[in-house]
Amino acid sequence: MIRTRLSPEETTPISIDGVKDVSMRVLLGGEHGMPNFSMRHFVVAPGGHTPRHAHDYEHQVIVLGGCGEAEQDGVTSTIQSGDVLYVSPELTHQFRNTGDEPMQFVCLVPRTRNNGGEVPGS
Amino acid sequence: MIRTRLSPEETTPISIDGVKDVSMRVLLGGEHGMPNFSMRHFVVAPGGHTPRHAHDYEHQVIVLGGCGEAEQDGVTSTIQSGDVLYVSPELTHQFRNTGDEPMQFVCLVPRTRNNGGEVPGS
Repeated sequence: MIRTRLSPEETTPISIDGVKDVSMRVLLGGEHGMPNFSMRHFVVAPGGHTPRHAHDYEHQVIVLGGCGEAEQDGVTSTIQSGDVLYVSPELTHQFRNTGDEPMQFVCLVPRTRNNGGEVPGS
Repeated sequence: MIRTRLSPEETTPISIDGVKDVSMRVLLGGEHGMPNFSMRHFVVAPGGHTPRHAHDYEHQVIVLGGCGEAEQDGVTSTIQSGDVLYVSPELTHQFRNTGDEPMQFVCLVPRTRNNGGEVPGS
């Protein structure tokens, strides 16, 4: 059985255009032989945010700590631990930490894009 | 944006052979238009367990509360909040609550079986 743990200190800072103070770790992905979808752990520092972007695959997100905002298609709502969100393909979205502690979430993506390519970070 | 919350009181008892004191809720599934995979929330009461069974699709599991045991292919290990597990297709597995409080986990499955049919409870 493949097993691991949610461990914020094992996430790695990511440097992508539009990202501020975000670290991530692929918990279960291609490197672990996942056939259909991947699970990634994100930690966003206070004031940090993911990129405001869109792509041709969906996200499923579980907020596991902290609080902030989720923006999708121009609409912003607050998020906190225990919230579960679905981000549709092709819609512009961003997650921002507006609180005082790290905001943690798990984000799941399919392994394969609609065009047959591999989903980045999966 | 489709959103919901982890809410143990919104899970529903499931009655399947081999299940004891387990309730579940599909957080993001076919009914919500999920294209590739589904997220389900399980609550196992103390002394309860999921069925010991096998099937042709995988699980990705995040333990969110309580503690217990995970058995896969005859090997048992303890699990607690924060653990992340991958259950391979075709391997016999079971989750048991050996603690004093409800054991909660999220379990993700693909929407489609290898034979093309729909994954039950997705």
